[in-house]
Amino acid sequence: MKNNEEKEKIMLIEKRIKELGIELPAASPPGAMYVPVKRLGSALFVSGQVPMQNGKPLYTGKVGSERSIEYARDAARLCIVNMLAALKEHLGDLDKMVNVVKLQVFVNSEPGFDRQHIVANAASELLFEIFGETGKHARTAVGTNQLPLDFTVEIEAVIETRESD
Amino acid sequence: MKNNEEKEKIMLIEKRIKELGIELPAASPPGAMYVPVKRLGSALFVSGQVPMQNGKPLYTGKVGSERSIEYARDAARLCIVNMLAALKEHLGDLDKMVNVVKLQVFVNSEPGFDRQHIVANAASELLFEIFGETGKHARTAVGTNQLPLDFTVEIEAVIETRESD
Amino acid sequence: MKNNEEKEKIMLIEKRIKELGIELPAASPPGAMYVPVKRLGSALFVSGQVPMQNGKPLYTGKVGSERSIEYARDAARLCIVNMLAALKEHLGDLDKMVNVVKLQVFVNSEPGFDRQHIVANAASELLFEIFGETGKHARTAVGTNQLPLDFTVEIEAVIETRESD
Repeated sequence: MKNNEEKEKIMLIEKRIKELGIELPAASPPGAMYVPVKRLGSALFVSGQVPMQNGKPLYTGKVGSERSIEYARDAARLCIVNMLAALKEHLGDLDKMVNVVKLQVFVNSEPGFDRQHIVANAASELLFEIFGETGKHARTAVGTNQLPLDFTVEIEAVIETRESD
Repeated sequence: MKNNEEKEKIMLIEKRIKELGIELPAASPPGAMYVPVKRLGSALFVSGQVPMQNGKPLYTGKVGSERSIEYARDAARLCIVNMLAALKEHLGDLDKMVNVVKLQVFVNSEPGFDRQHIVANAASELLFEIFGETGKHARTAVGTNQLPLDFTVEIEAVIETRESD
Repeated sequence: MKNNEEKEKIMLIEKRIKELGIELPAASPPGAMYVPVKRLGSALFVSGQVPMQNGKPLYTGKVGSERSIEYARDAARLCIVNMLAALKEHLGDLDKMVNVVKLQVFVNSEPGFDRQHIVANAASELLFEIFGETGKHARTAVGTNQLPLDFTVEIEAVIETRESD
């Protein structure tokens, strides 16, 4: 009984991602001596995700004069899509995710730009659209003067999963 | 017996907060699609807290030429007060806090200002005054070129609690 | 039997650190009202480590025009050495470390420098050299316009240990 309910929930979540027009890319291969996702008990720590597509930087530059808030919000959404791809690669099934626990959002910012939370909202909203209440998370959004490869946004996360190993 | 001891400890902590002249504000209502506090096992992840009072930014601007270290230290203390308010709202009783595990302190910094740790000390000292040894935490203090709404300081935390759900 | 195997593994790790020509310094005494390492369950949260030697800043200044990538990579390695010293002080034996779970790397960056990940790789590579697969971690690398005492790099970590208390 419980299994059936859970199965249905799973199918709804997978369906939900498709309904939102989101296609999960293949996770990028691990680069250096670190990994996209690492487990500790029921927690998964996800490496800082960047707005890369097909292995190439898609959103770069600083928000403020150079880039608009909408541009940065698109970048934040792509970070989340890449994060889900990394989690799917790690877990097999995204339905094993129980909670989005925490996001930390770094926004590549021109001096004077102070709407990092509006950029981060795009990431939070997407997670809520997909997961509902369990997608709600603790969050920190800050600016930074530089990100790797001049990416516009970088987002890391802590996720709670169904099984502890 | 144990219960009585614990009760006494609780009362001491609540008393301590009052003795320090700290009045916990009502926690601010959750804004966007994220939450002030999210649990994972016995850990609580607390969203980045900002020096806001009565729903309005109280401490803004960069430390360095624009704002003094003392101003930023006051901001850091207000972040902690707001954090305790969020935790009280979530837990009902602050006595359910077992340990302050970790703080991450972001200081809105002018180029050339490199005393972020002195600013962060104000937060750490306040937690020690309130909780004693269990208030001692791991900590990271860094500068940033921009914070949301130009806040002077933003502080996130991981807290250990008595019960796991 | 298992104990012997584990003992051997321990000896290998300690040996490995020496083979790499790394001498762990005495951990620096806790400064303010915070601690170098704090436990939550089987997790250890390690405070932001800085490239300090014998109690004095060794690597300072921003990467970009002022400091080279190689300089910053040396700084990142020293942060890891100091982290291992803090963990050894806390655990008694580094063999109690089961996994490096997560690193967060802050690189003091000139505007325009966007190779923070190359700097962070030096830290990741050193952990892999010492611990092998269990040293692989989730990672976030970002730039910052200022670090405490103008340090070139600051690195915090989450570590998994063998025993939960």
